Amino acid sequence: MQDKQIYLDNAATTVVAPEVIQEMLPYFETLWGNPSSLYDFGQQARTAIADARKRIAAHLGARAQDIYFTSCGTESNNWAIKETMFAYQNKGRHFVTSTIEHHATSHSAAWLEKRGFEVTYVKVDENGLIDPEDFRAALRPDTVMASIIYGNNEIGTIQPIKELAAIAHENKVFFHTDAVQVVGHMPVNVDELGVDFLSASGHKFNAPKGVGLLYIRKGLKTKSLLDGGAQERKRRAGTENVPYIMGMAKALDLSLAHVEARAAHATKLRDHLIDRVLQEVDHCRLNGHRTLRLPGNANISFEFVEGESLLLMLEQKGILASSGSACASGSLDPSHVLLAIGLSHEIAHGSLRLTVSHETTMQDIDYTVEAIKEVVTQLRAMSPLYEDFIAGKKAISAVK
Amino acid sequence: MQDKQIYLDNAATTVVAPEVIQEMLPYFETLWGNPSSLYDFGQQARTAIADARKRIAAHLGARAQDIYFTSCGTESNNWAIKETMFAYQNKGRHFVTSTIEHHATSHSAAWLEKRGFEVTYVKVDENGLIDPEDFRAALRPDTVMASIIYGNNEIGTIQPIKELAAIAHENKVFFHTDAVQVVGHMPVNVDELGVDFLSASGHKFNAPKGVGLLYIRKGLKTKSLLDGGAQERKRRAGTENVPYIMGMAKALDLSLAHVEARAAHATKLRDHLIDRVLQEVDHCRLNGHRTLRLPGNANISFEFVEGESLLLMLEQKGILASSGSACASGSLDPSHVLLAIGLSHEIAHGSLRLTVSHETTMQDIDYTVEAIKEVVTQLRAMSPLYEDFIAGKKAISAVK
Repeated sequence: MQDKQIYLDNAATTVVAPEVIQEMLPYFETLWGNPSSLYDFGQQARTAIADARKRIAAHLGARAQDIYFTSCGTESNNWAIKETMFAYQNKGRHFVTSTIEHHATSHSAAWLEKRGFEVTYVKVDENGLIDPEDFRAALRPDTVMASIIYGNNEIGTIQPIKELAAIAHENKVFFHTDAVQVVGHMPVNVDELGVDFLSASGHKFNAPKGVGLLYIRKGLKTKSLLDGGAQERKRRAGTENVPYIMGMAKALDLSLAHVEARAAHATKLRDHLIDRVLQEVDHCRLNGHRTLRLPGNANISFEFVEGESLLLMLEQKGILASSGSACASGSLDPSHVLLAIGLSHEIAHGSLRLTVSHETTMQDIDYTVEAIKEVVTQLRAMSPLYEDFIAGKKAISAVK
Repeated sequence: MQDKQIYLDNAATTVVAPEVIQEMLPYFETLWGNPSSLYDFGQQARTAIADARKRIAAHLGARAQDIYFTSCGTESNNWAIKETMFAYQNKGRHFVTSTIEHHATSHSAAWLEKRGFEVTYVKVDENGLIDPEDFRAALRPDTVMASIIYGNNEIGTIQPIKELAAIAHENKVFFHTDAVQVVGHMPVNVDELGVDFLSASGHKFNAPKGVGLLYIRKGLKTKSLLDGGAQERKRRAGTENVPYIMGMAKALDLSLAHVEARAAHATKLRDHLIDRVLQEVDHCRLNGHRTLRLPGNANISFEFVEGESLLLMLEQKGILASSGSACASGSLDPSHVLLAIGLSHEIAHGSLRLTVSHETTMQDIDYTVEAIKEVVTQLRAMSPLYEDFIAGKKAISAVK
């Protein structure tokens, strides 16, 4: 194993920025009062998170009072979806989403179905893109809400959120987007997008794991998911995680100060990685849209290769990557996202997700490409299927 | 204002122990991998939280796999109550709780009522104690679950949880206890108590705000509150807050290593405080049970005094306290707990909660008693009601 590790799994989680740790420390060490306490020591914490909320809101083009802090993107998605559907069930009990959502959304949809709601799953094309006309066709008079992932966490495809939100509103349907992979990596403005709800997660942009946010447009009657105390304008109970809220604001400040340069850097590395692998390795395919994709995301399927073996051998060369979303790891089922874009089970199992950050270098990418070439060759040399294929027999499926 | 502050609001939140900060730092700085990632860098985080879970479980007399990490005590209460009631609604739709619960429980009960469930609120006596026979009488054939707070966050009364859980089980009713004020301050063993669910919150015992736990006894079919990824044995989705989980385990190690000495110290200070105030200040009363109470909790109502003025003037003398639960501060309504034990609105508004920690000293307490005497005298001197009372007119209510 080489000494240096090349971390190419930034969609799973990111390093906590040193500036973020420095920002948080005073809130552990000295300013640890309860923001709900009336004395000045508590009010200092309250003032701090009010400032954090204001800065985060400004970054997202939102009003401060429409940003609610949560414990993670998963909580944000659960909250927006479940409690909006319940709050407006007098209008109807129909929910629209896609076939390539993060499990925080798709499992919330399943939760609704168990409680008598109806769900329509809009399909995607072979690049993971939703056709806006398919989306429009899914909306019904009893549809309350639609939830569509902005940038897909596995294959990176970016949906036309602005267009989808407009279609939803033409049909008097609320629109939520899971922007967990987007916020901090691309400029996001809730008004320009026209979304009613937006979820984000701190640990995807160099804040710690355990803090997220939900934007809820003014006037919406979504109830609380966590009932209890009067925190977050009585909409999200629980003593505020002051250090992490401060850390998330700092992380977003840092990310967005450089967002265009960082996105350009990530895009350049991503494209170099994709181009080289597709050119230099046979029988592989890119998953997700070639250009409408998250700056840092490459997802490639290798025929005649088993994804877990690929990951293990890359790790031995110091490269940390994943075969799909970390949240679903440990499962032997192939990714529902890869199946939704039409991959067979076999090809889906041979997939590799590489997600770069602003700290990744071109040298890292070139080293990674060489490692992939070597490892894929080794694995195929051990594959009876590949042997058959080379001998002229029919491959399990045609790719590339 | 004096230089040193005397923090007597440990029921609202506690200082983060320096050892806890040291325990967390490596998980921000170097071991920030996603515990769900398959490579060793992720698995190190996974191993760490498995160890934390094992240590916490041992402290509570539970199996490691029955401890689920959450973002706070509020989430734990919401989860246990809402999702157990939904999961077992084929048995019935009746829930039992008390009139003195934390809002995380009482508002979850209200949430159930809005969804067609029935709730019975068992009353308490003038000391805040539940009569087990009242509890028994509230249980019905269609009762699924009861939830009773172990140590009350406002008045400190400790309920006979073991007896109540046994009565619940005789009636085939699941039993949850909100032990947020107890865990870390008194020994707790889920098997000895016989509870099916137990909630705790890290920031009440020197871990940071933003992490809690729910104990769920083996075999219970409670569904997830947060749906999504496969974390926490597929029962609580969301990337794990690794640093805080490690911090919470360390904080519990520290607390429980000294639990008896700390509880004895807190009890001694509490009793000294209560005794002196009741002896040296006229027209005041202790709220909550005199002996069956949390080690660090004193809650006293002063007639002819307005609680917020009392707090402000104590703060000017460097004493930080509260008039009720921090989670409900900002509300002008008097505490539902104080009303439930029979206080009038006027008396409830003149209440002061002082909660000590192992770091509080006898000098702090004596200084605080002198300050209370001085401030109460000053406030009463400005009170027309007190003037009338001294002039021989009837007081608004008879106390002490």
